[in-house]
Amino acid sequence: MVVKVIELVGTSPNNWTEAVDEAVMEASKTLDHILGVEVTNFTANIDDGRIAEYKADVKVAFHVH
Amino acid sequence: MVVKVIELVGTSPNNWTEAVDEAVMEASKTLDHILGVEVTNFTANIDDGRIAEYKADVKVAFHVH
Amino acid sequence: MVVKVIELVGTSPNNWTEAVDEAVMEASKTLDHILGVEVTNFTANIDDGRIAEYKADVKVAFHVH
Amino acid sequence: MVVKVIELVGTSPNNWTEAVDEAVMEASKTLDHILGVEVTNFTANIDDGRIAEYKADVKVAFHVH
Amino acid sequence: MVVKVIELVGTSPNNWTEAVDEAVMEASKTLDHILGVEVTNFTANIDDGRIAEYKADVKVAFHVH
Amino acid sequence: MVVKVIELVGTSPNNWTEAVDEAVMEASKTLDHILGVEVTNFTANIDDGRIAEYKADVKVAFHVH
Amino acid sequence: MVVKVIELVGTSPNNWTEAVDEAVMEASKTLDHILGVEVTNFTANIDDGRIAEYKADVKVAFHVH
Amino acid sequence: MVVKVIELVGTSPNNWTEAVDEAVMEASKTLDHILGVEVTNFTANIDDGRIAEYKADVKVAFHVH
Amino acid sequence: MVVKVIELVGTSPNNWTEAVDEAVMEASKTLDHILGVEVTNFTANIDDGRIAEYKADVKVAFHVH
Amino acid sequence: MVVKVIELVGTSPNNWTEAVDEAVMEASKTLDHILGVEVTNFTANIDDGRIAEYKADVKVAFHVH
Amino acid sequence: MVVKVIELVGTSPNNWTEAVDEAVMEASKTLDHILGVEVTNFTANIDDGRIAEYKADVKVAFHVH
Amino acid sequence: MVVKVIELVGTSPNNWTEAVDEAVMEASKTLDHILGVEVTNFTANIDDGRIAEYKADVKVAFHVH
Repeated sequence: MVVKVIELVGTSPNNWTEAVDEAVMEASKTLDHILGVEVTNFTANIDDGRIAEYKADVKVAFHVH
Repeated sequence: MVVKVIELVGTSPNNWTEAVDEAVMEASKTLDHILGVEVTNFTANIDDGRIAEYKADVKVAFHVH
Repeated sequence: MVVKVIELVGTSPNNWTEAVDEAVMEASKTLDHILGVEVTNFTANIDDGRIAEYKADVKVAFHVH
Repeated sequence: MVVKVIELVGTSPNNWTEAVDEAVMEASKTLDHILGVEVTNFTANIDDGRIAEYKADVKVAFHVH
Repeated sequence: MVVKVIELVGTSPNNWTEAVDEAVMEASKTLDHILGVEVTNFTANIDDGRIAEYKADVKVAFHVH
Repeated sequence: MVVKVIELVGTSPNNWTEAVDEAVMEASKTLDHILGVEVTNFTANIDDGRIAEYKADVKVAFHVH
Repeated sequence: MVVKVIELVGTSPNNWTEAVDEAVMEASKTLDHILGVEVTNFTANIDDGRIAEYKADVKVAFHVH
Repeated sequence: MVVKVIELVGTSPNNWTEAVDEAVMEASKTLDHILGVEVTNFTANIDDGRIAEYKADVKVAFHVH
Repeated sequence: MVVKVIELVGTSPNNWTEAVDEAVMEASKTLDHILGVEVTNFTANIDDGRIAEYKADVKVAFHVH
Repeated sequence: MVVKVIELVGTSPNNWTEAVDEAVMEASKTLDHILGVEVTNFTANIDDGRIAEYKADVKVAFHVH
Repeated sequence: MVVKVIELVGTSPNNWTEAVDEAVMEASKTLDHILGVEVTNFTANIDDGRIAEYKADVKVAFHVH
Repeated sequence: MVVKVIELVGTSPNNWTEAVDEAVMEASKTLDHILGVEVTNFTANIDDGRIAEYKADVKVAFHVH
């Protein structure tokens, strides 16, 4: 059993949890066997003194059958 | 005054904040003087393309009176 | 165009997202051109076995026009 | 000449060297020009007080034609 | 479910794998639910120009009931 | 919007800037929406007391439509 | 003698050296006694498959007389 | 022979050396076979513009005979 | 309550503790609400085979009203 | 008593343990008082889809009597 | 085959590439079999608001035949 | 001007400052142009519940003529 790890950045206008969810959903479109994620960085873009976009750097691990 | 630091991993089906809370509650069962926590890692297990378990690595500091 | 980066610690009694928001709001009082933030550390103070104060170390980037 | 680096996790019931070998073998099924590997993490799953699965995080570098 | 992580250093006159095994065996004397290990450092003592003692820094994770 | 990050190593006989450029050009052959790069390591091969090949480890971020 | 360290990000359309220079020039507008710089990160924005903006994270040290 | 490592924070109103000593003394109350320490962090609390409490994060290694 | 963190380098001809004190004293000239410090680096200049100047990199945290 | 630390890279066609041994043996040709080693990196060169050369980055500590 | 790694700091009034070259040239005066370099840090001294000396921390690897 | 950096470990029965001094004195026996030091690690051996030997990992920089 070999696992492959890829790095994605998910984004959300609302919060970091949604940003991670978005990355997981994008990955699950093309990958069947996702095992887990690790969030390695939490950033955000600011617009007009408010957070406009939450961004989460996410490592996604999945089975290479 | 000496402080001791231990490392726990809290888990939750819902989000990372609950995962940290769980680790704090578990620690407070046996430790009277918890001062604070530091979250050092945010991971999650994925099942069927969705996050099934949020996990938070937590360093817990408490007084050794 | 030069960007300056400063380091703040935001706090909130409720959660880390509010702690980051508070740091952004404080920064936006005196800085016009905030571009983004990076959260580098998540900690909390514990009181009586419960999280009493969430703290987020935040790097804030803004334009020096 | 450009080199690409991917991250795999090899596993073995016997030892970490076999876990690395497995990752290299899996990679060589689809990649012709593997140059080298770097092992970045050594972990293991424990079952009944014994190591049941050795796991090696491996960065694999290969030529992009 | 909460996991606790402790840090041990296993030693062996023969090799690092045995050094990790020794740490796992020592931990399993008093802990029922060991989940896994991570080896964070590989060192050795040298005597008379030869490795006399292999040492492995090992993080051991186990269930807290 | 999800961003994917891959790791390349660009090389050049002349300097590190060209090494980074080469990695960007290689990536742009197959990727339409490259956003940016981060150079994480600067190395070089030496031949006969002179730098014969500059190498730049480059993280390339691009949109996954 | 006390030294203060601030963090800037310089940018240039041409190369990283100019990006560092720009940060130093911006700093020298308001600071008389700059001692030195350390470049901690090299990034770039890509537009249409080419580097459009070189960015250098720079720590600037100066005397607080 | 297995070594266990724990993390303490020693404090002193006078200096960091005393802060480390305090951590060692506290550890030696309950542990017979302390081998050594590593100081991983030096911090201090400030009161009224002066250092009121020196704090040393200390990793303590001891034999588990 | 928001905390700001700045980075100073204190120096002393005698020892590192004095170097940290100097940084704290300099900071307290202009800042009313210093909370604490973290020493992140210990260096020294050598002259004629002896330490001529002790230098301490210090992160200083203070309340922003 | 002063200890000096040098950095070597040992290689072996067979495994990483032999690669470390080779570095220790090379060091012991010219150094009488080697105390110990730390392995800081595990890499390998791949040839034809198989590991052709195991490489271990080794820090070697020895007495300067 | 054993490789030794030493650490040099090259300097140049013009740019970092020359600073690295200078370190390589100095090393090649006494070492026959230099294999490669890694640049681990980029700093500069500032004089009168301009970079007066570029400095590159360089790890140099060479064969110990 | 090229600078070389070596790594020493100084020891002292009394404190870490003396441990650093010892490393500097040992280095100055054979090196004429020592510029400075950086202390990268503070450890100690414990005997009978007391610190018996303070150890300081020291990077020493000196001119290569």
